[in-house]
Amino acid sequence: MSNLDKDLLDREGKRRTLQGCDSDYDQAGIVVFGAPFDSTTSYRPGARFAPMAIRQESTGTETYSPFLQKDLSEIMVCDAGDLELPFGHPQKALEQIEKTIARILQDQKTPVMIGGEHLVTLPAIRAVLKKHQDLCVIQFDAHADLRDEYLGCCLSHATVMRRVWDLVGDGRIYQFGIRSGEAAEFFWSKTHTNMTRFGFEELRETLEKLKGIPLYLSIDLDVLDPGIFPGTGTPEHGGISYIDLRRAITQTGITGQVVAADICELSPHYDPSGISILAACTLLRELLLSL
Amino acid sequence: MSNLDKDLLDREGKRRTLQGCDSDYDQAGIVVFGAPFDSTTSYRPGARFAPMAIRQESTGTETYSPFLQKDLSEIMVCDAGDLELPFGHPQKALEQIEKTIARILQDQKTPVMIGGEHLVTLPAIRAVLKKHQDLCVIQFDAHADLRDEYLGCCLSHATVMRRVWDLVGDGRIYQFGIRSGEAAEFFWSKTHTNMTRFGFEELRETLEKLKGIPLYLSIDLDVLDPGIFPGTGTPEHGGISYIDLRRAITQTGITGQVVAADICELSPHYDPSGISILAACTLLRELLLSL
Amino acid sequence: MSNLDKDLLDREGKRRTLQGCDSDYDQAGIVVFGAPFDSTTSYRPGARFAPMAIRQESTGTETYSPFLQKDLSEIMVCDAGDLELPFGHPQKALEQIEKTIARILQDQKTPVMIGGEHLVTLPAIRAVLKKHQDLCVIQFDAHADLRDEYLGCCLSHATVMRRVWDLVGDGRIYQFGIRSGEAAEFFWSKTHTNMTRFGFEELRETLEKLKGIPLYLSIDLDVLDPGIFPGTGTPEHGGISYIDLRRAITQTGITGQVVAADICELSPHYDPSGISILAACTLLRELLLSL
Amino acid sequence: MSNLDKDLLDREGKRRTLQGCDSDYDQAGIVVFGAPFDSTTSYRPGARFAPMAIRQESTGTETYSPFLQKDLSEIMVCDAGDLELPFGHPQKALEQIEKTIARILQDQKTPVMIGGEHLVTLPAIRAVLKKHQDLCVIQFDAHADLRDEYLGCCLSHATVMRRVWDLVGDGRIYQFGIRSGEAAEFFWSKTHTNMTRFGFEELRETLEKLKGIPLYLSIDLDVLDPGIFPGTGTPEHGGISYIDLRRAITQTGITGQVVAADICELSPHYDPSGISILAACTLLRELLLSL
Amino acid sequence: MSNLDKDLLDREGKRRTLQGCDSDYDQAGIVVFGAPFDSTTSYRPGARFAPMAIRQESTGTETYSPFLQKDLSEIMVCDAGDLELPFGHPQKALEQIEKTIARILQDQKTPVMIGGEHLVTLPAIRAVLKKHQDLCVIQFDAHADLRDEYLGCCLSHATVMRRVWDLVGDGRIYQFGIRSGEAAEFFWSKTHTNMTRFGFEELRETLEKLKGIPLYLSIDLDVLDPGIFPGTGTPEHGGISYIDLRRAITQTGITGQVVAADICELSPHYDPSGISILAACTLLRELLLSL
Amino acid sequence: MSNLDKDLLDREGKRRTLQGCDSDYDQAGIVVFGAPFDSTTSYRPGARFAPMAIRQESTGTETYSPFLQKDLSEIMVCDAGDLELPFGHPQKALEQIEKTIARILQDQKTPVMIGGEHLVTLPAIRAVLKKHQDLCVIQFDAHADLRDEYLGCCLSHATVMRRVWDLVGDGRIYQFGIRSGEAAEFFWSKTHTNMTRFGFEELRETLEKLKGIPLYLSIDLDVLDPGIFPGTGTPEHGGISYIDLRRAITQTGITGQVVAADICELSPHYDPSGISILAACTLLRELLLSL
Repeated sequence: MSNLDKDLLDREGKRRTLQGCDSDYDQAGIVVFGAPFDSTTSYRPGARFAPMAIRQESTGTETYSPFLQKDLSEIMVCDAGDLELPFGHPQKALEQIEKTIARILQDQKTPVMIGGEHLVTLPAIRAVLKKHQDLCVIQFDAHADLRDEYLGCCLSHATVMRRVWDLVGDGRIYQFGIRSGEAAEFFWSKTHTNMTRFGFEELRETLEKLKGIPLYLSIDLDVLDPGIFPGTGTPEHGGISYIDLRRAITQTGITGQVVAADICELSPHYDPSGISILAACTLLRELLLSL
Repeated sequence: MSNLDKDLLDREGKRRTLQGCDSDYDQAGIVVFGAPFDSTTSYRPGARFAPMAIRQESTGTETYSPFLQKDLSEIMVCDAGDLELPFGHPQKALEQIEKTIARILQDQKTPVMIGGEHLVTLPAIRAVLKKHQDLCVIQFDAHADLRDEYLGCCLSHATVMRRVWDLVGDGRIYQFGIRSGEAAEFFWSKTHTNMTRFGFEELRETLEKLKGIPLYLSIDLDVLDPGIFPGTGTPEHGGISYIDLRRAITQTGITGQVVAADICELSPHYDPSGISILAACTLLRELLLSL
Repeated sequence: MSNLDKDLLDREGKRRTLQGCDSDYDQAGIVVFGAPFDSTTSYRPGARFAPMAIRQESTGTETYSPFLQKDLSEIMVCDAGDLELPFGHPQKALEQIEKTIARILQDQKTPVMIGGEHLVTLPAIRAVLKKHQDLCVIQFDAHADLRDEYLGCCLSHATVMRRVWDLVGDGRIYQFGIRSGEAAEFFWSKTHTNMTRFGFEELRETLEKLKGIPLYLSIDLDVLDPGIFPGTGTPEHGGISYIDLRRAITQTGITGQVVAADICELSPHYDPSGISILAACTLLRELLLSL
Repeated sequence: MSNLDKDLLDREGKRRTLQGCDSDYDQAGIVVFGAPFDSTTSYRPGARFAPMAIRQESTGTETYSPFLQKDLSEIMVCDAGDLELPFGHPQKALEQIEKTIARILQDQKTPVMIGGEHLVTLPAIRAVLKKHQDLCVIQFDAHADLRDEYLGCCLSHATVMRRVWDLVGDGRIYQFGIRSGEAAEFFWSKTHTNMTRFGFEELRETLEKLKGIPLYLSIDLDVLDPGIFPGTGTPEHGGISYIDLRRAITQTGITGQVVAADICELSPHYDPSGISILAACTLLRELLLSL
Repeated sequence: MSNLDKDLLDREGKRRTLQGCDSDYDQAGIVVFGAPFDSTTSYRPGARFAPMAIRQESTGTETYSPFLQKDLSEIMVCDAGDLELPFGHPQKALEQIEKTIARILQDQKTPVMIGGEHLVTLPAIRAVLKKHQDLCVIQFDAHADLRDEYLGCCLSHATVMRRVWDLVGDGRIYQFGIRSGEAAEFFWSKTHTNMTRFGFEELRETLEKLKGIPLYLSIDLDVLDPGIFPGTGTPEHGGISYIDLRRAITQTGITGQVVAADICELSPHYDPSGISILAACTLLRELLLSL
Repeated sequence: MSNLDKDLLDREGKRRTLQGCDSDYDQAGIVVFGAPFDSTTSYRPGARFAPMAIRQESTGTETYSPFLQKDLSEIMVCDAGDLELPFGHPQKALEQIEKTIARILQDQKTPVMIGGEHLVTLPAIRAVLKKHQDLCVIQFDAHADLRDEYLGCCLSHATVMRRVWDLVGDGRIYQFGIRSGEAAEFFWSKTHTNMTRFGFEELRETLEKLKGIPLYLSIDLDVLDPGIFPGTGTPEHGGISYIDLRRAITQTGITGQVVAADICELSPHYDPSGISILAACTLLRELLLSL
């Protein structure tokens, strides 16, 4: 192979992964991958474009976090690319995601999934539960996602946490930032999940309480305020600031208990200014650095 | 009529009104209608598109307010559609609005008007004054709107509150959130209106003071910060947060004294992300639920 | 009911249907309805927003066609609203569409469906075939849509015409304007469908040949050139002009043989200028006037 | 005054006029000015922004026309700036325009007005008629603009040519490119105006016939196809190509009979790509070079 | 010259400068000019369009500040227009800027430069240092801009403050709001500059300390939060609110020590809603009023 | 390495190159690479984003050309990634490009470069001339690009063909589609280049005449009409259709004489609809398939 080619390919090979996530799979402790699925999105679709958009945006952002005073070059992350998921067929798509998460866990690595819509969390948790039966779920989200069915279907981004509850049962889902849903969802949550409405007030004590228990962290980015994150399927006003979400993420990450995580519901085409993609990109960096 | 047709038409009939506002006129306590007029807008026109945009957006939003813990299905609201107003002829347009408000009041219902530009408030107040001579006006707005004329004309969105003052006189207009205007307007307001600059600091005590007096609530949505509400004709930085405006609206609404209200100056085409329409839509829900 | 209310509601009731399509179902000869489904869209989703966007746009367009010298007021069309279809579950959605088309046909009316993605054509043809066993299909499209499966699934907007072939067999699908596909699709079409690539050259003689045979007309709007119709999921350059498509539609419509039709694949959010919605809206008018 | 200042101001002074239109008023043979009025626009407002947008765009375009092989530097044009017109008050605005045109004509110069909506043509023609009683009007437009009233008003961009007819009478308005209107307008035109539908077929013979007669040339830019000119209030598909409009303009201009002209209905905010502004800008150059 | 012409030109002459900045150069105490250069921008270019965009926006904003209770009409500002700088040739562009600043200072006026990218600050400071050897620099910015080189070049918007340090040495650069950069920049800053990360906490005491010393104020607008200022080349989340930046600017301005200032990095095309241009425009007003 | 990882990485590795261009460098006959440089762009910058945008778009387009009836899988193309070029320093950037082209030629492969602005053509031709002294240049472009200097600089996208002439001399540059420039450029071209204005009329006879001579094909995409290609720095109306450019490209490509080629001046951010990127992407496919 010519030197020139080597130069070009090497440099480019690095630029095509998430910036700073170019470790080999075998050496990596964390494996990031995309799950570009959005077929059950009920309002504004397009979360399928999120993984590619975040990867591209990352070439323009710093790998160093002045908040954590740490650089992605200090840890070993492998960007394993995107799954190719069939549009309009949730069942098949969820199976592929479950298999992928299962394998990464089996290889003793921490999977971090970039959605896609929030339904992708369901197969991820199903896979993790096989390894960690005592798993608890931390959900940052504007929506309760606790409907039992939506338009006659039980697999939907609006029912995902109800389906997770089918798997884990009462008291093991901790919801933060919730500010939208049907009356019935809020009522149901009272006896089945631990819901903190509007913000993160009880996060610290929750983490205290859960010390030692394996955690799944699911970040639905629509928990952010639409003023800084308009690029999502179902934005809700009155949301969380970037700084508060960043803090909540790293607070959870540095417990060392997070065994898998996802970051969902960026729908980049709805934000022509690009700041939503940027938020997703740097929050992912903060998540990776704190794990 | 075939069953199929009934099904389709019924469902659709409901979806074409504001979500949750499908009561019959006769049974409704509140009547919402659109006044798509924006001919005197001096900077970026397009408020004419607001009523239709809000109606469409409402199909994607919840009817339940987790803030008020109340659902639109619990109250009786009739969406009576939009007036058809002649572009470029304020006099005629204002007459139609005045007549409409008058009739709704006569039928013992509370009118809630969706602008359009802020000038639509003038005929509304003129109609209400005929029924409630002791009316006071609560205005949430970034602009004083107190010029005596604008480019040689006395009917304009920039003069509307001065024209209202012509009707009600000194001390009966309460302005909140004002942060833009000519020096002369601020000076004039000192002796003629009650102006709280920048925020809502004195809202609570104002409402205390006005206990028992009928109120007209006029919400110029540009009182919101452009970061969450860019879709308006003349945005002004340094504005109100969604949460603060929501609180101010419901605080006023639950006094039970509001006899008519409007929500104006959404110009949806200036916000490709759609979050301005969303804000208008959910704030209207909060207003309706608190009346 | 008060007079005022009647006035408002009546006028508005009319404005909320497609302009000029406000006949009662029972009296109408043509029934238009929306099928807002786009879950299998492989590239840029959003065809779900098409029916609502076309309806809204129609309020700003003329009901008179200077081409056909005819007005929508001269014919009886009922806009029956939109179906509510579950996102991400093609099987269920297709059943609802099939049932709807079947009922309209049973009532001796001509159904005209506004997609949604192109897959909605499959259940429509399935329903029509029950009444008209000798049906032939006229397809205007940039894409062959003849794959046998796509990403492992057999129900997709990329396989729809192959599935239609499963129903009608060789030689009964006439494709026009095709300019994109896999090599295998073009090869397969040689023995199974009648394909005119790039344009409408053979449309006139095709219609001659099919004289007396019931026709299903399926208009995938991406047959238009992206220069005038960028708002679609998978645009393809080198397409048809508005004038040529308009002529092809009316040429087919005035045969009097069209027993059902659809107009698909407008994805309005990808065209901020709005001209794609406008094209869909006026082409629908031309289709209705020529049926 | 310092040298530096002189340098800065001189260069900038030139850049702030339309590129190549920086002659002094007294020496200029042609005077261009803006009439930023759009209050009667019935669909998408914003033509008010056209003069400023064209002026700014002109800094990025060539002053040389390879079509006419002529440069703006070879002729004397004065860009006299924009009128300040009151929004929402057509009567007053029209008076100001009439006075301006009258004065320019009195000074023996050719006025070229940049709209604004099409209603601005009315006062211009009123002023010109005082000097040239035998004036004929050449209109390039997608719309007939021949309604007698619109939403109850007789002054509107949809009635402007009917109002012009009130001034000039039968047979003196020549309309080209018309492809939208009510049936009644097309019918009325048969006995009152000379209408060429869809294109310019009869332009050459019209100009032959009118040899020696003073002409007013009114260019409603929506005559262009929306594919190249989406940035207008009421686009209509099936329109004219840039090349054909350019040719029609210069064909008319080089007769030497055009005593006044306007170019209207650019609404720049509806075209984020900017090509509509560009078209307006270079067509204005071609108009000026051919007068 | 005719009266009409005078009227038109005069009014327009004023409207083409920044609103309220139409003093003659000789009488003005402050001279504003544009430096539309963005060739070294590494991510999203377009700051070249800032001066023209701000000037145009200013026609729609008030000249009165309710915060400072002062109007631009009370001070003498000359808008001297824009420099014409060669794209892609930093060396030449920087020389022109330096010469311009030098002349304005020599004429005993305060220069206020509208960028352009941040590199334009370097020649400005070079010019000022010749007059004020003891100059200190106040920088409001999201980025440290302290790299020694960027992609092999030492002149870049990412190295500008390092180049300024080459001129002024240790301890004379005060940085506020910094929240992005390489680890090495943060490390280097510890011994060479005075950096306040994330906000303005130490601004007041800094200004106390620097009493009597001439100051250069450089405002990189990306210090603002992307929620209110998406229109910039490299936005960074977690930024400053409009109100805090406004206060920091006027706090610095009213010391009377600012001998020159710039406001940089608005890239208007990245914000279709226009609120970024608006923020730049009113912050410039506040800066001018406080100098 | 685990199987899962292999699967993910392999699939993704392919998706990250231009679709269908995943041959190894050593086996490839054609090498595509990006030159993301746009520092001398005088009007709307952003061509730097073109290579990445085309690569991403290619994942949604077919590899089969129904025009050429050929698939990218039938030829061997290596996508070697993008060069990392310093912004604002043309000299350095051009050197890197020249070195890259030289090496690819030395390895007996055909280089195809994706710009970036048009200036990138200069170093490419400089490199090719060292191998093919008798090279002729075929340029498809809206602009003559023949200025001797632009804003005082001789290296610019507006001077590039004049600089190429410095290298090759009279009569060896063939320009097609030219429709914009200064009068002086058109005059100069008469004695120095072979210019076909507005279209491709003389392309066939030119290719006849040049039979046997090595050709450099430079495609400035702004030769296309803005209606189908708004996403470029300096669009010009009255341009070429997609079909005509496609034909001109393949006509030139199939001569077998093209030893190197480039495709320039896509500026994707100026076209929110995405059709400009799509055009660039499929025209690149046609170019590759015809070489």
